[in-house]
Amino acid sequence: MAIKLIGYAQTLHTRRVILTLNELGLSYELEAITEIQTTRTEEFLANKHPFGKIPVLCDGDFTVNESRAICRYLVSKYQKDAKIVLIPNDINKASLVEQYISYELSYFDPPLTKILIQEVFNKRKGEPTDEAVVKQAREEIEKVLDVYDKILVGKDYLNGEYSLADLFHIPCAHYICTATPHGDVFDKRPNVKRWLNNLRNRELMSPYTI
Amino acid sequence: MAIKLIGYAQTLHTRRVILTLNELGLSYELEAITEIQTTRTEEFLANKHPFGKIPVLCDGDFTVNESRAICRYLVSKYQKDAKIVLIPNDINKASLVEQYISYELSYFDPPLTKILIQEVFNKRKGEPTDEAVVKQAREEIEKVLDVYDKILVGKDYLNGEYSLADLFHIPCAHYICTATPHGDVFDKRPNVKRWLNNLRNRELMSPYTI
Ligand SMILES: N[C@@H](CCC(=O)N[C@@H](CS)C(=O)NCC(=O)O)C(=O)O
Ligand SMILES: N[C@@H](CCC(=O)N[C@@H](CS)C(=O)NCC(=O)O)C(=O)O
Repeated sequence: MAIKLIGYAQTLHTRRVILTLNELGLSYELEAITEIQTTRTEEFLANKHPFGKIPVLCDGDFTVNESRAICRYLVSKYQKDAKIVLIPNDINKASLVEQYISYELSYFDPPLTKILIQEVFNKRKGEPTDEAVVKQAREEIEKVLDVYDKILVGKDYLNGEYSLADLFHIPCAHYICTATPHGDVFDKRPNVKRWLNNLRNRELMSPYTI
Repeated sequence: MAIKLIGYAQTLHTRRVILTLNELGLSYELEAITEIQTTRTEEFLANKHPFGKIPVLCDGDFTVNESRAICRYLVSKYQKDAKIVLIPNDINKASLVEQYISYELSYFDPPLTKILIQEVFNKRKGEPTDEAVVKQAREEIEKVLDVYDKILVGKDYLNGEYSLADLFHIPCAHYICTATPHGDVFDKRPNVKRWLNNLRNRELMSPYTI
């Protein structure tokens, strides 16, 4: 049965799913949503996502939404046939992957998202950048990355081996590097720099265009 | 091997883990952290949580932190011996549990946390309540609960059967009801009201004191 991803390849949440599909070697059809109105229809709210969000994944007649839940679904269902392990079978190892996934959500993503809103999304809408917010978010991410730099001492990946936790960090970090002048926060820290270069050089970023 | 939970039973994140331990019928020792300084020691940062947060779980010599990762660990390891299923074995059903877990994190928790900060945590510190923030957060949660009320039509629980997704909603919702005047946002919506009453009446809230 065909996998259909409803989303927009330029958004960070859709990219998280695309990276997971690519890592697992799965082919899929992208149903591009370019108009927010599409997600406001009764059909979309009833059958795709009750909060009107993308991405949504349809695998045959099974539908699941929310990017991180979609990625976990793809791993649970298809990892056994893939060349890569994104969540280890060992319970302790898998639980540490979940721990690092929670670091991404709780500490890494929030300040970087604040920067992206100010430096990219507001600009795109013609709204001014609030420099005070950017400054405060930079201070926040600097402290968080100091901790990451320690976690990554002597390790290529957060949990030792590459996992879904590393993957979840890619879209936001990559976008900070390509679309804002704040990529230096990663480069200043040797272990973070090495880790992120490894991640960004994986050959699965297509259809990334930025 | 004994399970030790390092945390503080009054905080929402620690409560999430306590509820999971109780549902799975697991006994544990609570190592209470009452002084924030305890989480700032070199030992704590190196061996318990690099960001200095609680809760942390030690199960024999395995340590894992971040409340939701801890709960997933407990389910992965101990559900097979428990009387309850918090994450179904079926991949599709488990993925929908993850989807609803993501709703809690993405849509339910943020506005309610804003209200708790203003109405409880700021007051405790002697800081003023920002009524504009409360008003805006109330508007936000009202919209979110309209969606929940639709999701819960004809269902006792989000995913049909009780799951970890329902459980994750308890600490924050319960606290709004007991410590703020905003419990009416749940009571106004019949399906949400029924669902939340079911959840709050489960006999596992101990050592809840509020
Ligand atoms: N928690 C969701 C967030 C999804 C999300 O916010 N998607 C945005 C696009 S990146 C969206 O659908 N926005 C439309 C809207 O908020 O109405 C996930 O992880 O998938
Ligand atoms: N994402 C973490 C959040 C934990 C958290 O914020 N814990 C608070 C207490 S409820 C804490 O440790 N605060 C101390 C601090 O932030 O320094 C989780 O889910 O466990």
